[in-house]
Amino acid sequence: VKIRVAVVPAEIQAPAFKGKTAVVIDVLRATTSIVHAMSEGAEKIIPVATIETATRLAASLDRRTRLLCGERDGERVDGFDLGNSPGEYTSEAVAGKTLILTTTNGTDAMARLEGAREVVVCAFANVSAAAQHVRGEAELLVACAGDAGAFSLEDAVCAGHLVARLRDLEDGDFDLNDGAAACESLYAVHRDAVADCLRASSHGRRLVGLGFGDDIEIAARIDSHAAVPVIREGRIV
Amino acid sequence: VKIRVAVVPAEIQAPAFKGKTAVVIDVLRATTSIVHAMSEGAEKIIPVATIETATRLAASLDRRTRLLCGERDGERVDGFDLGNSPGEYTSEAVAGKTLILTTTNGTDAMARLEGAREVVVCAFANVSAAAQHVRGEAELLVACAGDAGAFSLEDAVCAGHLVARLRDLEDGDFDLNDGAAACESLYAVHRDAVADCLRASSHGRRLVGLGFGDDIEIAARIDSHAAVPVIREGRIV
Repeated sequence: VKIRVAVVPAEIQAPAFKGKTAVVIDVLRATTSIVHAMSEGAEKIIPVATIETATRLAASLDRRTRLLCGERDGERVDGFDLGNSPGEYTSEAVAGKTLILTTTNGTDAMARLEGAREVVVCAFANVSAAAQHVRGEAELLVACAGDAGAFSLEDAVCAGHLVARLRDLEDGDFDLNDGAAACESLYAVHRDAVADCLRASSHGRRLVGLGFGDDIEIAARIDSHAAVPVIREGRIV
Repeated sequence: VKIRVAVVPAEIQAPAFKGKTAVVIDVLRATTSIVHAMSEGAEKIIPVATIETATRLAASLDRRTRLLCGERDGERVDGFDLGNSPGEYTSEAVAGKTLILTTTNGTDAMARLEGAREVVVCAFANVSAAAQHVRGEAELLVACAGDAGAFSLEDAVCAGHLVARLRDLEDGDFDLNDGAAACESLYAVHRDAVADCLRASSHGRRLVGLGFGDDIEIAARIDSHAAVPVIREGRIV
């Protein structure tokens, strides 16, 4: 299997994934929240890049069944129903609902992956299930959402974790680009202390400062969920 | 000391380094070649981003003392005097000369750092001398040139090596962004086999395929040189 990891969104180049399977990782917090929301019974999630698109889309949907979700600079967008804390995505809040989600990093990375056959949503919460889902693919692009365009350690370690799980599942040769090789090394460094790694990362420290420390503990729970949300034609169902 | 490593050029954000000291790393091969050229007596190197700028500038300079240097896709540019192999930069070739240099990755990263007070040119060839040069700076941006916009392992490991050398030299607290922390970990993984790491990297494998295997051995020689070339106002003197 040929695995290319884009450690920042700017590395995502359309020719590399057109018509293929991609994986998107934004551990803090979009992909963790999506895994939680789908596990708790959300009917559909529509990730969009901008607040404007989110509110326009919301206006066209039934008020009783749609939720506006997301953050900017870590905080819930004014007037939105939910922010971007995985703990907010309870069955009480989301079951049967259509969620429109826009976040600083994650949904931007997803927008860059338009044209992929499918985009698998991955976080520590579902990394083994995600590996199981993509096993057998000849080629894989793994896109780390990063932090405001910059490299983020937690996404890289999660990408490395995915590569390690794929090695457990597949016998063939692994052809890794430098990003994938680096992420696998970083996973080996941090595998026994993922929560510490998340707390110490730039994004983790900022979230702690904003009072979102609980989100980090939730995001560090490896394989807490079996759901593998997949984006096809712009939505997760 | 506050150290920010940009693992790919797209991460380089002007506000982060305006008026400050930056370090640029392009192990394969631009910064290695520059260290060699200055050590072998080049009078001046003018890094430029494009072939057009290079040839226009060359036309304005004395034919007898200027050299057009650089590559695209690894190969010497047609009509140029030298390519981008550090071994080409002998005293016979470069002593007393003004070198105009344009490369795929390195000189592009340098162009993005315009506005820094000075840009220190770093490679494995001079990493300890470079650390010595920047010690005492309160804040440092280290820019990895990468490989056609993508993350490259050899630049990241060299950036991590620079951080490790600075730890030997400085007592204060180290405030690292995620990129710097990751590079330090990657250096720890590869420190005992830097030449192997360079050969196995995406860029290294491509260079071997093009017949530039010797360049990799030269680029892996740690602290082979004491020169610390510095770009100020667009040139290295």
